[in-house]
Amino acid sequence: MGLHHHLVNDRIAATGGRKLSTHHPPSKTLASDIFPSSSVVAERTQICMPPPPSSSPPSLLARLASSASLASRLSISRLFSSSPAAMDPTEDSLRKALAGRQAAVDAQGNAVRALKAGKAPKPEIDAAIKALNDLKIEKADVEKRLQAAVSGGAGDGALTREAFRHAVVNTLERRLFYIPSFKIYRGVAGLYDYGPPGCAVKSNILAYWRQHFVHEENMLEVDCPCVTPEIVLKASGHVDKFTDLMVKDEKTGTCYRADHLLKDFCNEKLQKDLSISAEKAAELKLVLATLDDLSADKLGAKIKEYGITAPDTKNPLSDPYPFNLMFQTSIGPSGMLPGYMRPETAQGIFVNFKDLYYYNGNKLPFAAAQIGQAFRNEISPRQGLLRVREFTLAEIEHFVDPEDKSHPKFSEVADLEFLMFPREQQMSGQSAIITRLGEAVSKGTVNNATLGYFIGRVYLFLTHLGIDKGRLRFRQHLANEMAHYAADCWDAEIECSYGWIECVGIADRSAFDLRAHTEKSGVALVAHEKFAEPREVEKLVIVPNKKELGLAFKGNQKMVVESLEAMGEEEAFQLKAALESKGEAEFLVCAMGKSVIIKDNMVNISKQKIRENQRVFTPSVIEPSFGIGRIIYCLFEHSFYTRPNKAGDEQFNVFRFPPLVAPIKCTVFPLIQKPEYESVAQLISRSLTVAGVSHKIDITGNTIGKRYARTDELGVPFAITVDSQVDVTIRERDSKDQVRVSVGEVASVVMEVIDGHRTWSDVWSSFPHHTSASAED
Amino acid sequence: MGLHHHLVNDRIAATGGRKLSTHHPPSKTLASDIFPSSSVVAERTQICMPPPPSSSPPSLLARLASSASLASRLSISRLFSSSPAAMDPTEDSLRKALAGRQAAVDAQGNAVRALKAGKAPKPEIDAAIKALNDLKIEKADVEKRLQAAVSGGAGDGALTREAFRHAVVNTLERRLFYIPSFKIYRGVAGLYDYGPPGCAVKSNILAYWRQHFVHEENMLEVDCPCVTPEIVLKASGHVDKFTDLMVKDEKTGTCYRADHLLKDFCNEKLQKDLSISAEKAAELKLVLATLDDLSADKLGAKIKEYGITAPDTKNPLSDPYPFNLMFQTSIGPSGMLPGYMRPETAQGIFVNFKDLYYYNGNKLPFAAAQIGQAFRNEISPRQGLLRVREFTLAEIEHFVDPEDKSHPKFSEVADLEFLMFPREQQMSGQSAIITRLGEAVSKGTVNNATLGYFIGRVYLFLTHLGIDKGRLRFRQHLANEMAHYAADCWDAEIECSYGWIECVGIADRSAFDLRAHTEKSGVALVAHEKFAEPREVEKLVIVPNKKELGLAFKGNQKMVVESLEAMGEEEAFQLKAALESKGEAEFLVCAMGKSVIIKDNMVNISKQKIRENQRVFTPSVIEPSFGIGRIIYCLFEHSFYTRPNKAGDEQFNVFRFPPLVAPIKCTVFPLIQKPEYESVAQLISRSLTVAGVSHKIDITGNTIGKRYARTDELGVPFAITVDSQVDVTIRERDSKDQVRVSVGEVASVVMEVIDGHRTWSDVWSSFPHHTSASAED
Repeated sequence: MGLHHHLVNDRIAATGGRKLSTHHPPSKTLASDIFPSSSVVAERTQICMPPPPSSSPPSLLARLASSASLASRLSISRLFSSSPAAMDPTEDSLRKALAGRQAAVDAQGNAVRALKAGKAPKPEIDAAIKALNDLKIEKADVEKRLQAAVSGGAGDGALTREAFRHAVVNTLERRLFYIPSFKIYRGVAGLYDYGPPGCAVKSNILAYWRQHFVHEENMLEVDCPCVTPEIVLKASGHVDKFTDLMVKDEKTGTCYRADHLLKDFCNEKLQKDLSISAEKAAELKLVLATLDDLSADKLGAKIKEYGITAPDTKNPLSDPYPFNLMFQTSIGPSGMLPGYMRPETAQGIFVNFKDLYYYNGNKLPFAAAQIGQAFRNEISPRQGLLRVREFTLAEIEHFVDPEDKSHPKFSEVADLEFLMFPREQQMSGQSAIITRLGEAVSKGTVNNATLGYFIGRVYLFLTHLGIDKGRLRFRQHLANEMAHYAADCWDAEIECSYGWIECVGIADRSAFDLRAHTEKSGVALVAHEKFAEPREVEKLVIVPNKKELGLAFKGNQKMVVESLEAMGEEEAFQLKAALESKGEAEFLVCAMGKSVIIKDNMVNISKQKIRENQRVFTPSVIEPSFGIGRIIYCLFEHSFYTRPNKAGDEQFNVFRFPPLVAPIKCTVFPLIQKPEYESVAQLISRSLTVAGVSHKIDITGNTIGKRYARTDELGVPFAITVDSQVDVTIRERDSKDQVRVSVGEVASVVMEVIDGHRTWSDVWSSFPHHTSASAED
Repeated sequence: MGLHHHLVNDRIAATGGRKLSTHHPPSKTLASDIFPSSSVVAERTQICMPPPPSSSPPSLLARLASSASLASRLSISRLFSSSPAAMDPTEDSLRKALAGRQAAVDAQGNAVRALKAGKAPKPEIDAAIKALNDLKIEKADVEKRLQAAVSGGAGDGALTREAFRHAVVNTLERRLFYIPSFKIYRGVAGLYDYGPPGCAVKSNILAYWRQHFVHEENMLEVDCPCVTPEIVLKASGHVDKFTDLMVKDEKTGTCYRADHLLKDFCNEKLQKDLSISAEKAAELKLVLATLDDLSADKLGAKIKEYGITAPDTKNPLSDPYPFNLMFQTSIGPSGMLPGYMRPETAQGIFVNFKDLYYYNGNKLPFAAAQIGQAFRNEISPRQGLLRVREFTLAEIEHFVDPEDKSHPKFSEVADLEFLMFPREQQMSGQSAIITRLGEAVSKGTVNNATLGYFIGRVYLFLTHLGIDKGRLRFRQHLANEMAHYAADCWDAEIECSYGWIECVGIADRSAFDLRAHTEKSGVALVAHEKFAEPREVEKLVIVPNKKELGLAFKGNQKMVVESLEAMGEEEAFQLKAALESKGEAEFLVCAMGKSVIIKDNMVNISKQKIRENQRVFTPSVIEPSFGIGRIIYCLFEHSFYTRPNKAGDEQFNVFRFPPLVAPIKCTVFPLIQKPEYESVAQLISRSLTVAGVSHKIDITGNTIGKRYARTDELGVPFAITVDSQVDVTIRERDSKDQVRVSVGEVASVVMEVIDGHRTWSDVWSSFPHHTSASAED
C-alpha cells in the first residue's frame, strides 16, 4: 500500500489502507474532465515569501478534536489553507459579538422608527439616529474583523499565499517546468507533462533517490509493469475498497465528489455568510472536521439537509455511491482477463517476495525498491501537481523479522534533530516540536529503530534537495488513522501554499501485505530462521473428536471443527479449563453465527513439546513511499523567490535549487558577440559536455543582465561569462558574487562545486573577485 | 509514430505507420493469457556461441521476392529463425529428388511384386530386392538431407541457437535479470519484471542514453503521461488503424492471431511433411512471404482452404477481423471520455511542439526526447522479452527545416564504417555490406545528413553498450515498407537467436505528425523563418466570382467556390488556359461528387507578386525510436558465454558486460572469514559507496572460486579480494587476470577503470601481477 493509497481513501482503512485529509483549497468543484486553457497571467509583480504560519491553530484544532475518532480524520493542514476548519475562539466570539451588534442595530432601528412614529422631538430623534449609526459602525467593524478571521487568520496571509503560488505557478508554466498535458486539445484535468527543466529536475531527484536509498543500502531494485491483473489488486484490497463517494447531477449525469460538494458548501457558508450564528458555524466546522468519516448514507443526508445541488446546473443530485479510482482495462483480446493500471508500485514487490528473498541469500532484513508510474482516476482533480491522475512513486519495502526491528545503522541518524509531531502532541493540542530522533526511538514514540532509521534518511533526503527544514515535519498517524494491522506510521509533511502536504509516508505495515498475497495465491511468502541446533518448542495441539462432534452437530460438524482448530492459545486453554471444571462450555462458531455447547469428550487440548530446526514466519514490512511529484512541487515553492533589479522598478524570479537539483548546472555566455569569445565559450562547453555536466551556451546578443535573469528563473546555479581569452568569470546565482578563473581551470572549478567537492565560499576565498557594476542590469 | 508502432501493424501503413516482420520462431501459438510456470531447466550444459549465419540466404530470398510489393513484407531475419521461409534451390531440388526417389522405390516395389507373382528365378528376385533396398537407402539419404535443409540450413545451427538461447534465458531467469510478472498468480503473458540485476542494467542503459543523446545534443527532454485521451490517438491514426487480425474459436471464443495460425500451419507442413511436392512447398513459402500483405478476406480464405482449426480444440474458426492493440480505459468517472494507454511516447512530443519551439527560442533545428512506458495489448505474445505488452521506449523527435536537412556535426560520424543494407542491395539479392557512413550520405543512399548523423550516433550508442559490430546492421526500408509521406527509414537490426531483430527505427517522417495534429486540434504547429529583409514572392491568386457562381450553382455555390480556391498552381493554370481558349471548362467538385462547367466569367486566376517578411512551414521530423527492452535482450545474448573450470568438468556462465552496463561494478571479498580482512573490506566498500559505485560485499564462507563464478554470472567486471591488510588483488572478469594494489589506492583504481578513464591493460601494466592457482576453482 503506497503513499497515494493513503491519501485517497478512508473506506479502505477497514481492509488495507488508510487515508489522510485531502488538503483542498476552497476552490469551485470542477466537474468536467476538460481542462480550461491556462488562465495564468504573465505579468510580473513583487512577491514576498508567504509568512510562516502561526503555531497556535493546530493546538486549537486538536483541542476541538476531543474524540479520537474525530481527530483521526483531521488535517492540521487545513488551518493553513484558507478554509477555517478550526474552531477559533476569536472567530467564535466575533460571531457572537456580531449577532449582538446586529440585535442592537435592529433594536435601535425599531427605537428610531418608534420615535418617528410617535413624533418625538427632533433632537431626541437625531440622538437616536446618531446612536444607530454608531452601532452600525461598530457592527461594520466587527464584521470586518470577522471577515479577516475567516479568511485565514489575523492578516492577509491567505491572500499573500495565493499571490505567491500564482507567481510560482506562472513562472513554472511559462518556463515549461510543467505543461497541462494535451494542451492543444484543451487538456485533461489531472494530467501534466514535465517540460525540459521540470523533466531534468525530476530525473535529478530520482537519480539522487537511487543513490541515497538504493545504492547506499544495497536495496534490490525492481521494475514491474503498470498493467496489473485483477487478482493481484483483489488480494491487496484495491478492487473492493479503493473508492471515493460520488454523486451525479440527476439530469445531466455530470459527476462530482460528494465530500467536495459538502466541503465547498460549508466553506462558502463560513466565509461568505457572516450572519450565521456561532452555533451554525460550529456545526459546519464539525461537518468539515468529520468529512472523511462520513458514510455514504450520512454524506447523502447532509447534502439533502443543506439543499446542495449540482454546482453547474442547480439540478438535484443522486445519492452518493462508491466509485473505484483505478483505471480499468482488459488484458488480451478475449475480454476475459480484467486488469487495472496499478494504483501504487508496492504490489509488484510483494508478489516477488519469494524470489527476492532467495536472491538475497534467504536472509533478512533486506529492502526492495521500485520507481515507477502509478495511476488514480480521480473524480475531479484539483490542486495542480499535488493531486493528479498519473504520478511517479518511489517506494521501498524493507522486510524485517518482526521479532528484531533494530537497525545496524541507526546510530548514524540518531543525533538528527527536526520537527516531529507525535500522536500525543496532536491529541493534547500542542504543536510539532524539534526532537532528537534517537530520543524519539528510545522513548518509544517511534515504534522501532528501523522505522526511525528511515525517518532520519527521509529527512536527510528532503533537506538535501532543498526542502526548508522549518517547513518540514514528521507527523505520526493517530491511532484510528492507521489500519488495524499497522504498527506505526509517520508522514513527512511539507508546508506549501496549500498547507501541510503529505509527501512521504513511512509505515510499519507488519505482515499484512505478504499474508494477503500468501492467502490469495497459495504461495507461502515467508522467511525462515534456521536454528544453530534444534530447539524444543511447546506447541498448542487441538484434536477435535470428529465422531462425537458429528453426532452432536450433524451437517454443521465441519464448521465447529474448523472453529475449534482456529483457536488461539489463550482461548483454547480457557475452553480446556471450562471443560475440565464444568464438563461443558459455550463456544462461539462464527460461521454458524451462534454459540454451541461443547462437551469435554468433543475436543482434546494440550501442549506438546516439539523439536524444531527452524522458525517460519511472515516478515514485517516497513514502507517508505515517496510521492515524487508532490516533493517536486513543494521544492519549487521552497526554492522560489523574487528580487528587484538595481533600479528597483522590476522584480526578477529566482529558483534557488542546489546544484544537485538544478535542471541546468551552468551557463556559458560570451559577454559580447565576438568570435574569439565564442570559441572560448565553445571550448568550455565541450569540457563540460565531456564531464557530463548539463549546461547551456547562449551566444545571443542579449545583455548579460537579461541572460542572467533568464537563467536565474530556471535555477541555474552558476554562469561562466567569457570576456577575455585568458580569464573568465564565474557568477553564483543567489549571492550574484563573481570570481575570476583562468580559462583552463574554469570547467573543473565549476564541476567541483557542482559535485559538492568544494563549496562556493571556498571558491570565493580562493580566487580574485570580480566586480562589474554594469553587468547585472 | 514510434518503433513498436512499426513493428506491429501493416494495416496502419495507409495512414500513419509501417510494419516490419514479426520474427516469430515456429513455436506453437499460445492462446491463453495465462503464462505457464517457467519450464526452464536449471541444469548446466556446455554452450557454444551460435555460429554466424551464412550470408547467402538473404540474397536467395531477395531473388524470390521479385515484386516490390512482395519484397516489402519480407523479413530477411526469417531465414535465421528455424523456419525456412526462403525458396532455397537446394531444398527445391531435394524435394524434386525425393519425389523421384519415391517414384523409383514404388516402381521397383511393383517390379519385385511382379517378379514374385511371375515366380521368377530367385537370383533375379534377389537382385530386384537388392535394387529396391538400394533405392530405399538413396531415398532415406535424400530425406535426411531435405530434413536438414528445412530445419535451418546446412548444419544444426538452429538447434545450437535454441540451446544457446535456453542457456541464456535460464541464467537470466535464475539470477533474476527478469521475472515473469505476477508469477505467484501464474503470470500474465507478455508482462515481465526486471529483477535487481536487470533493473540495474536497464537504468544504466537509460542513463547512458540520456548522456549520449539528450545531453550531448542539448535535447529538450519531456515526460508525458501514459494515459492519453482518444482525440490525440484519433489524430495520430492509432484509434482507426492500430490493429491486428484476429480469429476466434467458434465454440469456446478463444482468440488467436490469424496470421500466426496460417504461419504455423505453413511452417509445420514445410518442416514435418517431407512428402509434399516442390510446387506445394513453393506455394506455402509464398504464403509465408506475403503473410503481412494479406487482407482479412484473403487470410480468411487461406485458413478455410487449408482447413486450419483452433489449435487447442480443433473447433472451426471465425472469419478474421481487426482487433485494436491499444489498452482502452476511461478517464474520469463519467465514462464519457475514452482514453488509451499510449502505444508510443512520440505523440506527447508532437502535441507540445508549439511550446517546445518557443522554449528553443523559436529556432530550428531542435530535438525533443522522451523515455517512458508504452503499451500494446498483443493478441498472443511470444518471444519473451522481444514482444511484450508493456515496454520502455526512448524516442527522439528532431525537428528540422525540410529545405535544410544538413547537420553541423555530421563530420564527426562520417568516417564510421559498419554494415549497411540499403534497399538496392536487398532488392538485387546482395547482402549487407560494410559502408562508410559519409559515402552513404554523399551518394544519396541515406536521404540526408541529419538522418545519417543519427544512424551514426545510434551505431556508437549500441556498440558502446557491448552490441557485437558483426551482428548489427542498418537496414533501409523498402519503398513500400514506408508510409507514403516518409522520406527515408533505416532500422538498426541486431542479430540474436531469434534472427535479426529491429531494435531502433530511424525515420525521416517529413511533416506528417505535426500536420495531423494541426488539422485535428486547429492549433498551427508550424515554424517561421524570418527574412533578413522582405522578399518578393509570386503567389497564386484565385478570385471566384460569387455572384456568377451563385446564379449558376445556387445551393451548391459554396462547394464550387471552395473547390476552386483549393486548386494547386498547376491545376489552376490549366483551368485558366482552358477558360481563355474555350471560354469554359469542365471542373471536378469532389464535395458534389461530379464535374461542373465553369465559364470564364466565374473565376479570375492570376499570379501576383507579394512582399513577405517570413516563411511559415511545417517542420520535418526525424525520429530515432529505441525499443529499450529489445536492446537489453540482444545485449544479454551478445554478452553471454560459458567457460569450463580447470578440471574441465563444469561450465560457468559469464556476461561480458562493459562496466557502463554491468549491474554491479565491483565485488569486495575477504579471502577468508577473518575480522581484519572484513574491516578492510568494509573500508573499501565505504569508499566505493561514497563514490557512487554500485558494488557488493560478500563475506560468506564460500570458496573464492565459487564467489567469482557467482558474480561472473551477473557480469560484475571487477572483484577486489582482501587477503592482507596492506595489499589486495583486483581481478578482471574476462581475462581472470589479477593485479596487486595497495588498500589505499584500490577504490580509485577500480573507479578509474569503471569510468573509462583508464583501461584494464593500463592497470595490468602498472601493477604487480598476482597468480593464485588455487583461487579460481
